[in-house]
Amino acid sequence: MYEMQFGVPMSGAVLNNINTRLDARTVSVLLHHSGSKLVLVDPASLQLPEDALRLLPPEHSAPRVVVADDPHEKELLPAPATALTYERLLEKGDPDFAWVRPANEWEPMILNYTSGTTSAPKGVLHCHRGIFLITLDSLVDWGMPARPTYLWTLPMFHVNGWSFPWGMAVVGGTNVCLRRVDAADVYAAISRHGVTHLCGAPVVLNMLANAPEAVRKTLPGNVEILTGGAPPPAAVLHRTEAIGFKVRHGYGLCETAGLATSCVWNAEWDKLPATERARFKARQGVRTPATAEVDVVDEKTGRSMPRDGSTVGEVVIRGGCVMLGYFNDEAATGAAIGDGWFYTGDVGVMHPDGYLEIRDRSKDVIISGGENISSVEVESVLYGHPAENEAAVVARPDEFWGETPCAFVSLKWGNGRGELTEAELVAWSRERMPRYMVPKTVVFRDELPKTSTGKIQKYVLRNIAKEMGPTSRGVSSKM
Amino acid sequence: MYEMQFGVPMSGAVLNNINTRLDARTVSVLLHHSGSKLVLVDPASLQLPEDALRLLPPEHSAPRVVVADDPHEKELLPAPATALTYERLLEKGDPDFAWVRPANEWEPMILNYTSGTTSAPKGVLHCHRGIFLITLDSLVDWGMPARPTYLWTLPMFHVNGWSFPWGMAVVGGTNVCLRRVDAADVYAAISRHGVTHLCGAPVVLNMLANAPEAVRKTLPGNVEILTGGAPPPAAVLHRTEAIGFKVRHGYGLCETAGLATSCVWNAEWDKLPATERARFKARQGVRTPATAEVDVVDEKTGRSMPRDGSTVGEVVIRGGCVMLGYFNDEAATGAAIGDGWFYTGDVGVMHPDGYLEIRDRSKDVIISGGENISSVEVESVLYGHPAENEAAVVARPDEFWGETPCAFVSLKWGNGRGELTEAELVAWSRERMPRYMVPKTVVFRDELPKTSTGKIQKYVLRNIAKEMGPTSRGVSSKM
Repeated sequence: MYEMQFGVPMSGAVLNNINTRLDARTVSVLLHHSGSKLVLVDPASLQLPEDALRLLPPEHSAPRVVVADDPHEKELLPAPATALTYERLLEKGDPDFAWVRPANEWEPMILNYTSGTTSAPKGVLHCHRGIFLITLDSLVDWGMPARPTYLWTLPMFHVNGWSFPWGMAVVGGTNVCLRRVDAADVYAAISRHGVTHLCGAPVVLNMLANAPEAVRKTLPGNVEILTGGAPPPAAVLHRTEAIGFKVRHGYGLCETAGLATSCVWNAEWDKLPATERARFKARQGVRTPATAEVDVVDEKTGRSMPRDGSTVGEVVIRGGCVMLGYFNDEAATGAAIGDGWFYTGDVGVMHPDGYLEIRDRSKDVIISGGENISSVEVESVLYGHPAENEAAVVARPDEFWGETPCAFVSLKWGNGRGELTEAELVAWSRERMPRYMVPKTVVFRDELPKTSTGKIQKYVLRNIAKEMGPTSRGVSSKM
Repeated sequence: MYEMQFGVPMSGAVLNNINTRLDARTVSVLLHHSGSKLVLVDPASLQLPEDALRLLPPEHSAPRVVVADDPHEKELLPAPATALTYERLLEKGDPDFAWVRPANEWEPMILNYTSGTTSAPKGVLHCHRGIFLITLDSLVDWGMPARPTYLWTLPMFHVNGWSFPWGMAVVGGTNVCLRRVDAADVYAAISRHGVTHLCGAPVVLNMLANAPEAVRKTLPGNVEILTGGAPPPAAVLHRTEAIGFKVRHGYGLCETAGLATSCVWNAEWDKLPATERARFKARQGVRTPATAEVDVVDEKTGRSMPRDGSTVGEVVIRGGCVMLGYFNDEAATGAAIGDGWFYTGDVGVMHPDGYLEIRDRSKDVIISGGENISSVEVESVLYGHPAENEAAVVARPDEFWGETPCAFVSLKWGNGRGELTEAELVAWSRERMPRYMVPKTVVFRDELPKTSTGKIQKYVLRNIAKEMGPTSRGVSSKM
């Protein structure tokens, strides 16, 4: 897969990394929408394209499937003898084949379907210029030294691994890949290979922070984690740093091909107490060097909101990393980047010091009695509870308030269901947040539904909350 | 001056940094050629523009002169009360003035007159896009961490300090400036401010390596030096690293706005003996990430030379950092970048591993009996002599051979003239290089003529060698 990030564009084709945990129906929709002609697949996922191809409409001539055998993985069956494998394909290749350079820097290079928190995927198209810019930008932003050892905890199919496939090639990095991202394998890989850098959503930090003592290993040196994809709860940041990881935090979207803002650290914050420091680090930060502008605006008028740290508006971005548009979807493209700015659909505030803080996805905001409640803010408080593993807050219909916050919660190792009650968590929350923000419903779950990149699928939870029916005034209901 | 690297382009003007050690006549030529409208000057150099303005042709309406007082420099007289100072100009400014953004990224941003080794300056024009690219590129290439402390040993008027004025702003660096670049001040600044990075031509390395014990200070930590501008002699690299500096080497020209190649280190070379290591580090290296291509070609046909480490050709460069062209000089622009490649005028070889090694400036090659002699190669051997401080080798006319190598040599502290004779140095050289490369003439000098950026002015030495008259066959002549 790493080689494909180079080989596919160099052959003149457009690269479309597909999430291996999608269902066959969705994969068939993506293959058809992109007009796919060739599918490269790992033997562990071979069933997925086979099922997906059968679901293609008859007019779509089936793409060729190439299986990339993995000689390092003993548990996998090798590809069938009749299959075209990646190695056999390479053997048939022409060693003198000249790299197909793009005719100009605006030619498309990669296509990524947005996945995860919404159920309507759109094909985000980026050009060579954009990928070149984001690659250098992310290296400079992270202060990447020469020859790092990079661990792939962030899947390459997620926004092309935030540009680091190309970035690692630029700085001569060593790529360490994992088949399974679990705490034991991650700690073992860090220790065995002397990993210096890795990326991951807050859920990865949470996994490392809550790992049982038995699988934790002493870090071999300075290990930097870049987190993003969701606002990291202060408690998770704090626990991860206590283990010795150095955590950076940035913000970007599929549409910006990687980080567009970065929470650049201010040395003065070192003097603050740990929880305060984590609160600052949870901010999305300032524009990266190659991002032209970031602002928080009124989504209707496009006017800048006051930089007061409290007036919410839509986050907008301008710069070389913004996508060409959504593939074959002019309406969606026009809606997102109509006036030269990319409207992210994220809701945030701008602090007086110019640091952006995301409050929520527009659709995740809970509107209760006319008050906007940031689900992220409520979750952030819930993460501070010592028994809590993960929390997600969504809107549940309410006959009186319109919506009320409904919390889905999983607890840590050793804390079985029943050790914490709904009433106890609600009481605990009342001491820590305004009354209107306190969840009216708490649902305990062993695990929360997630995308393969570790984002909690709020639309799934929102559907569950909707099916629970409206809460009555002041009365909570249990599942 | 640092503020000007930002303020001038942001006001919509083109920035032209002028070497303060030029003579008034040359400065007046540059001011006139560039159509200068405003001159900002340090009080220490006030006489220079005053004299230059008097030499302007009558049709050129004199540019306004603004004096930037230096409150930290007690030895300088303040600007006359009637003068417009930089601070007074700022006071008259409009705090709401909106940054004049370029209409497009190809608009000119900086103009630098090539100076130094030739006597015919040309105005190298770079656009915003090029400067943006070289700035990120040089940070990535050096693996620049956040918040470095950068010492300005390389003047900002020399190719805009190889892009580091802007680079330091990107990474939140601290800029340490010096009025005088001598060994004592440099060591003192490194120690006092905890300098982490600096740039300088090999002459700066030589100065630091040969500094008397009394002015040397223990380095406060890891101090990295980026050298370029001339091939660093192995012996100088070796001595500088022995003191504890970590030396990187790269290659670029005014026309590429900074480094276009970088001698990226191969860990296997660590196993080699010190002199071998220095020989590898003296190579100009491989293209930087944002440089598209570097090649060594036949200067007439443009065809690539074999990558054998011995076939010389002209070094050519293609990429985003190449200049727009020479200002108001279409003929020179066409000659330099006619076919999409920039012809550097440097002569080099490409090694089988893809590393470029510059052998000489075209005009510095000595042609003796039909053999091309690289002056740099001869100098490199001479620098290995323990008594030698600096060496420069140029062509001297010869009745039989056409040209022969003529060495200008200065000796180290404590080695007065006369302690090493011409015959001794020639004999020493014969043991270390092919006979045809051995200098037929050796001239001892207290100091070699240099440009303000530390480049030895070979054209001055070439003129001296020419005036010495031709050598007769086999007979050397003394000055």
